[in-house]
Amino acid sequence: MERTVIPKATLGRLPEYRNLLKSLPGDGQDHISATAIAKMLHLGEVQVRKDLNAVSGGGKPKIGYVREELLQRIEEVLTWDGQSAAVLVGAGRLGNALLEYDGFETYGVKILAGFDRDEQVIRPGRSKHLLPMSQFDAFCQTNAIRIGIITVGKESAQEVCDRMVQNGITALWNFAPCALKVPAGVFVKQEQLALSLAHLKNQLSNIHQEEHHGKDL
Amino acid sequence: MERTVIPKATLGRLPEYRNLLKSLPGDGQDHISATAIAKMLHLGEVQVRKDLNAVSGGGKPKIGYVREELLQRIEEVLTWDGQSAAVLVGAGRLGNALLEYDGFETYGVKILAGFDRDEQVIRPGRSKHLLPMSQFDAFCQTNAIRIGIITVGKESAQEVCDRMVQNGITALWNFAPCALKVPAGVFVKQEQLALSLAHLKNQLSNIHQEEHHGKDL
Repeated sequence: MERTVIPKATLGRLPEYRNLLKSLPGDGQDHISATAIAKMLHLGEVQVRKDLNAVSGGGKPKIGYVREELLQRIEEVLTWDGQSAAVLVGAGRLGNALLEYDGFETYGVKILAGFDRDEQVIRPGRSKHLLPMSQFDAFCQTNAIRIGIITVGKESAQEVCDRMVQNGITALWNFAPCALKVPAGVFVKQEQLALSLAHLKNQLSNIHQEEHHGKDL
Repeated sequence: MERTVIPKATLGRLPEYRNLLKSLPGDGQDHISATAIAKMLHLGEVQVRKDLNAVSGGGKPKIGYVREELLQRIEEVLTWDGQSAAVLVGAGRLGNALLEYDGFETYGVKILAGFDRDEQVIRPGRSKHLLPMSQFDAFCQTNAIRIGIITVGKESAQEVCDRMVQNGITALWNFAPCALKVPAGVFVKQEQLALSLAHLKNQLSNIHQEEHHGKDL
């Protein structure tokens, strides 16, 4: 079976499908149709079909999906595979907030440890799994880390990025407001929190403008 | 002139265009073409044209854009308008990280104050502009706040959302991992940090799978 990246929006709806499939009564029905799922979740039928086909082999016409198989396939995507864990560098407020964030489990992702060059922040009572940078290389290699999260300031971000890449990390999630240079084969997701807020503001101005315009008519 | 929402990706490139336009020498050239801008920024020409048309009235064929006007229009979008400021509720680690985040200025957005029901967090030495919830209603009304950022836990998020809506906030940026119920006319942007990490992991598995698949051939 050819495997493609599950679209982000689809991935975002998988927990809903999982919850629904789990909550269905064991009424002897082995199959479930996209139509039935769409109805129960108040989603469009086309969207549900597209979502489910992205994770499963596809339903059968007039019969639908095998409930058990579908649930199992969704669970596979949403369960931590024991690999592909992430590490984070920069244990400031944002870094600690991410380390303590309880939403990651839903999607089967895990931040295994956080690192900081300031040994002062590595003390009991702070976030779980905080380690000094001196242990970074060994930790990444021992745990075959592939995902790195950068929550240092923009002046240190490139240096941290380079260190991550040197240690075999190939996917970076960068919160520092700066562009990173990486070799081919390394993927950077630039998190732009400021842009999200700016876009929200922009949408808001537009709504107000429309309202105002409406009154003029 | 009809105004539409500037696409998020375009908005994200505006600081680059601004920096370029500001850095150009005053060489007597009043105009600049999309082609020239695209070349200098290593962007596609079609994309640059689309971006600039989204903020300005459009360039003239063979002449391009009036430099001063274009810069002015971009500055207008990226400058805080003295209105549309945001407030934040939930001064935990994430809330404080956002209050201290220095990337918002680039886009002309401002978090005017943060609120928390725990009066213990409101003490000198913590983030700027932290206020107790008892002052929330008055602050929103005095400052005509329209944007609210929710960084409380999921168990309090709906309550905070309701309070924001009661005080005239019509755009919400929700970091709590839960869906919010809002009346018509109120816009919610659900920030899904876990989903971003999950998507990154998913992209990564795919890259590895492809590599592996390649070796099998």
